[in-house]
Amino acid sequence: MSLARHKRFLGIDLGGANIKAALMNGDKKVIKTIHLYTPFWKNLDVVNSSLKKIRDDFGETEYQFITMTGELSDVFKNRKEGVLKLTKILTGVFTTPKLRILLHNMQFISPRKLKGNFSSIASTNWLATSTFVSKKMKNGIFLDFGSTTTDVIPIKNSKVIAIGKNDHERLFHNELLYTGFTRTPLMSLSQKIVFRKRKIPLMAESFANTGDIYRILNLLPKELDIQETADGKEKTFTASCRRLARMVGLDKENADVSEWKKLAENFYKIQERLIYKSCMKIVKSFDPETEINIVTAGSGSKVLEKIIKNLILALGNKKTKHLPIRNFIFLKKNIRDYEVASCASAIAVVDLGLDLFKSQNIL
Amino acid sequence: MSLARHKRFLGIDLGGANIKAALMNGDKKVIKTIHLYTPFWKNLDVVNSSLKKIRDDFGETEYQFITMTGELSDVFKNRKEGVLKLTKILTGVFTTPKLRILLHNMQFISPRKLKGNFSSIASTNWLATSTFVSKKMKNGIFLDFGSTTTDVIPIKNSKVIAIGKNDHERLFHNELLYTGFTRTPLMSLSQKIVFRKRKIPLMAESFANTGDIYRILNLLPKELDIQETADGKEKTFTASCRRLARMVGLDKENADVSEWKKLAENFYKIQERLIYKSCMKIVKSFDPETEINIVTAGSGSKVLEKIIKNLILALGNKKTKHLPIRNFIFLKKNIRDYEVASCASAIAVVDLGLDLFKSQNIL
Repeated sequence: MSLARHKRFLGIDLGGANIKAALMNGDKKVIKTIHLYTPFWKNLDVVNSSLKKIRDDFGETEYQFITMTGELSDVFKNRKEGVLKLTKILTGVFTTPKLRILLHNMQFISPRKLKGNFSSIASTNWLATSTFVSKKMKNGIFLDFGSTTTDVIPIKNSKVIAIGKNDHERLFHNELLYTGFTRTPLMSLSQKIVFRKRKIPLMAESFANTGDIYRILNLLPKELDIQETADGKEKTFTASCRRLARMVGLDKENADVSEWKKLAENFYKIQERLIYKSCMKIVKSFDPETEINIVTAGSGSKVLEKIIKNLILALGNKKTKHLPIRNFIFLKKNIRDYEVASCASAIAVVDLGLDLFKSQNIL
Repeated sequence: MSLARHKRFLGIDLGGANIKAALMNGDKKVIKTIHLYTPFWKNLDVVNSSLKKIRDDFGETEYQFITMTGELSDVFKNRKEGVLKLTKILTGVFTTPKLRILLHNMQFISPRKLKGNFSSIASTNWLATSTFVSKKMKNGIFLDFGSTTTDVIPIKNSKVIAIGKNDHERLFHNELLYTGFTRTPLMSLSQKIVFRKRKIPLMAESFANTGDIYRILNLLPKELDIQETADGKEKTFTASCRRLARMVGLDKENADVSEWKKLAENFYKIQERLIYKSCMKIVKSFDPETEINIVTAGSGSKVLEKIIKNLILALGNKKTKHLPIRNFIFLKKNIRDYEVASCASAIAVVDLGLDLFKSQNIL
């Protein structure tokens, strides 16, 4: 029995729209996860209350391991200010000196040592999760389809071989696809969309987002439907059709339900193509004999399953396999699939923290 | 001397983000204009206060002639509800029975006769302005580059020959380009943008809009810079560069001013191409010997001048001319160019109302 089994460790992924947290014991068993929608571009105070809720729900923890991406929010002047202010909120909530923040080199630092490390703290959550995955398998792709973005990370010989480190380079190399499961405004997906066999230019308004698409296609379960809608109205099939209709300059009453479903399907296909293409590029970079694992996470991981199924079919070989990230995690039984998928980054960061501390005999 | 010279008539264009109004006397001289930023998708009450301000500023008027497009806002369930609710607010402010609403057939109706006319009331402002222009010239294009959208309307033999009547058809036929001078989110303009000679996928966030582009390019004068910014921060060159940088996953500090200017220029070029292409298509539909007038209006009409200059250069003939809409309007001297351009639709609707009433001997 390990000395740390009864100790509790906390992992937090502090994103720009969502905060995810995972509680792990010293045997690396995940005890609990929390996913809180925290849209702090309106008001930074909500970060404070979400973190307090996590602290109070999870109780006393030995160490808190943090990864963040929220510093990119436009509530901050720049990423440096973002890292500083978010860290200040963190240290206000977790008063213990046992707060540790992840760096790009997979080391952790104390908040007291922020200076000089700002750019190394920004945008680390994808690295946490993909590094975690790289320890469990040899070759493949780590895919995280979150509310706002998608990570497409190549892993070779158990190493993360992503080229981009910051947001800009990651965008350029298609390792960060700025397309998500629920928050993405439909106007950003394309300039035109096929409706009734004609290509219609989209209205450039925040009328609808991908949450509407997956609500209409019945791929967005209630548990994951946690953000507000574009018009602030209901999270129903009908209200989503209403929002979707506006994108092409129509009212819901101008077409029937099957036509709105078809239109939703066409928007879905744009996201599918983006993710599919990025995966295919990586798959083709491997030797044809290589066994490739595609590991999926994120609130939209059910959608990824659909996309990967098509990809594996298209490849027509048996060397490519799909593995949900759950397969790599030691979990308390009552934690559900969608919770693991959504909070994978928080689980990963606490797992990495424990590994590092154990290797340094801190635990 | 006409009987109506000392009477006052009001024209209002009730848009989804802006309300424009023009006061005209019976000799069709424009006495005054007002342009009020009225973002009512957040709260419908602002429509009421903007209309009251217009009523109080302009004083007693004989008739009020209304054109609207605001019914498309997602504060309403659909366009029908939009027309109904906006009309209700109008009748609450202008208690006289002399309120008249424009229909697609260029007739006006009293608010009491709304029933059965909803779809004929929706989206008429482009028709008002282009019909007004069509009375003044034979062949050409009417261009209105507003805060949110651009109208590109062909006129042949003094007739508006646009194909689309509703928003959906107008989008399809490129007669309504959903791209504007200030409100358009940059994420809607393209999936990628050239920065430092590389095509960078855009962040799908409401980080910046076209107002930032024209602020950086020094084409957005203070008088027209009336809407809030994407992050709620300053309307300065520096703050606009900050917002622009976020679109490609960077901070302002990551590049120098000349690079942000170049990036802004690249976004501008996307809008330029859209407008240029739609105009060129119409120009080419005319017989090569035809004299073509391109008439410009809208808050962004200075930008249109730039685009048309290039178009005329590319055509290399002397048959195509640019005319600002001001040339067709009888104005009180103190009204400035940008006021006429911005409020052209309001001027047009009151002008059309007066023409019709005179022809029917109502005045």
